[in-house]
Amino acid sequence: MALTLAEVIASIQPADAGAMRRALSRQRNLTKPPGSLGRLEDVSVQLAGIFGTERPTIGGKAVIVAAADHGVVAQGVTGYPQEVTAQMVLNFLSGGAAVSVMAGRVGARQIIVDAGVAADLPEHPGLRSVRIGRGTADISVGPAMSREQAEQSVLAGVEIAIEAAESGADLIAAGEMGIGNTTASSAITAAFTGASPEETTGAGTGRNAEELAHKAAVVRRALEVNSPDASDGMDVLSKVGGYEIGVLAGVALGAASMRRALIVDGFISGAAMLIAQALCPTVRDYLIASHRSAEKGHSIVLSHLKLLPLLELDMRLGEGSGAVLAMPVIEAAAACLSDMATFGEAGVSDRDGNEVEAPIGP
Amino acid sequence: MALTLAEVIASIQPADAGAMRRALSRQRNLTKPPGSLGRLEDVSVQLAGIFGTERPTIGGKAVIVAAADHGVVAQGVTGYPQEVTAQMVLNFLSGGAAVSVMAGRVGARQIIVDAGVAADLPEHPGLRSVRIGRGTADISVGPAMSREQAEQSVLAGVEIAIEAAESGADLIAAGEMGIGNTTASSAITAAFTGASPEETTGAGTGRNAEELAHKAAVVRRALEVNSPDASDGMDVLSKVGGYEIGVLAGVALGAASMRRALIVDGFISGAAMLIAQALCPTVRDYLIASHRSAEKGHSIVLSHLKLLPLLELDMRLGEGSGAVLAMPVIEAAAACLSDMATFGEAGVSDRDGNEVEAPIGP
Repeated sequence: MALTLAEVIASIQPADAGAMRRALSRQRNLTKPPGSLGRLEDVSVQLAGIFGTERPTIGGKAVIVAAADHGVVAQGVTGYPQEVTAQMVLNFLSGGAAVSVMAGRVGARQIIVDAGVAADLPEHPGLRSVRIGRGTADISVGPAMSREQAEQSVLAGVEIAIEAAESGADLIAAGEMGIGNTTASSAITAAFTGASPEETTGAGTGRNAEELAHKAAVVRRALEVNSPDASDGMDVLSKVGGYEIGVLAGVALGAASMRRALIVDGFISGAAMLIAQALCPTVRDYLIASHRSAEKGHSIVLSHLKLLPLLELDMRLGEGSGAVLAMPVIEAAAACLSDMATFGEAGVSDRDGNEVEAPIGP
Repeated sequence: MALTLAEVIASIQPADAGAMRRALSRQRNLTKPPGSLGRLEDVSVQLAGIFGTERPTIGGKAVIVAAADHGVVAQGVTGYPQEVTAQMVLNFLSGGAAVSVMAGRVGARQIIVDAGVAADLPEHPGLRSVRIGRGTADISVGPAMSREQAEQSVLAGVEIAIEAAESGADLIAAGEMGIGNTTASSAITAAFTGASPEETTGAGTGRNAEELAHKAAVVRRALEVNSPDASDGMDVLSKVGGYEIGVLAGVALGAASMRRALIVDGFISGAAMLIAQALCPTVRDYLIASHRSAEKGHSIVLSHLKLLPLLELDMRLGEGSGAVLAMPVIEAAAACLSDMATFGEAGVSDRDGNEVEAPIGP
């Protein structure tokens, strides 16, 4: 790979403050009471900052679904067997999964990535294989992966995001699949935020209070055994992360380096953004939180990233499903800012009833 | 008009309980943890009940934007002059308004209705004129309209919704425009729910606490002068309603009679649904609340209708903008239920790791 991670990070610029100011000013002149589009106005201004124009347009959209397995499933932390990761990859490829159905509806390209599934997967034109390993090691007894593997996973994500951007994606959603990955995400979230494993650990696909207490205990052991260093994103990723989580952190960095918007999905996607932010705080300017997952650690992640989600629909599926669901809302925000008439253009009186030029005919 | 309102109301059937049971059962077999699509699953089951099939599909979509003026503006309750109603109708027709931009993006047909604007509007192929009057009378000194006019407005809405359904609209959004119509909606909401005018009256397009207190006092006077009878929807509509509100109540009845989903927008649209529900309680089965408006009376309306909104984005624009914004979410809910693979079809192991047939190849 030609790019180094340091080069990618150095290339990430803050959002364009001038374009954001012009977007705010344009919002005030559109034919509606000021502020009446609520959160859509905030998103539209962020998009102006990301794309560097007060009239942002969204062309292509992509959802990157990174899949990998987790050695920690040996501790009995999940409700589904590990083979489901590979089975769901095939389900994505044949279009039967929730994210596939949703992506088809909104016209988002689905990019399925084998980041390190613990099974042999067939060659498929829709499957991008970067396979950092055959599932991570069990984080409750040692590090998930080597530091080299962690860097490799992030760089793989950078490359995939850059390719997606070069193929025309303006909105890039970060989704994932990996039996066991809520356990890794709970450990990552505890490591960065200081919250306890009991606070960051939710049910995942598990079923009852006993399973939940066991899972939190496994997360606690993973943190004790590995002592991840919160000031070093790559250390946290290598010790308690996952291959797909590293890929998604890289996807965020790659999207930001190309000035594209990165749509954060749920808990695991959010945990990957904690890694990305630790590697490069400026990436935050490019993140749009799609939804608040019912998985309890997600609110801690969002609050740490200072992100307010657009949707709260009690979803907890992952795959990028919440991120894809939010795409039309984000597109509506951009379209209203860019395409609505101003008071002057439409001949609509403003708040004080000032006369403006005659209405444009139909 | 051939139909009488009594005939329309008699034709409205409850949602199909059998289809809803089959939809619930299908949801349990789709390739995801049970319940993990959250509110989308609830909406999908409601759609199954509305359309009478466990695999609902959504073809066409329409937003009906009914516009009318309100005599109560003479009391100085609004932040914009009355002429803005007519100006915004022209803005809808030329595609510059928020709802127009959003409808264009999601492929919803925009049906603009002059229900009683206090200005002459040009003929336009996109404008449906039903003009019950030239603005209502001032509700703070007497009834808004006669009972005959109220019935006429509801029947006009029924007819427009039936035509939209016959033209292929499966989702019908109820939007409005009318300077002064938050005042009428506050009076309607107080009449039906027993909440005080101070509780049901929000800022609308007004600006400060003084204006707000004045507006609540005007609403209180309207209720005292008119004594609307909450057990008689047509009485409430005629005394403190509006022509566009009557049309939207009729739109809901027409949509329900055709077994189409009615997407409720914000406060005024919600107040119209209070009228519709008073005329025919079964209409409730067909209502989907799109969003919670920042206009404070809206939460009282939603709670009275026992509707939980999909979006909470601090919007307070009206026009049907929130309802159109929610359309892709509703479509995603239907698509997941109808198009996702089941565990058996996809060869994905279920929660207990039971073996299922081999995966379908890509």
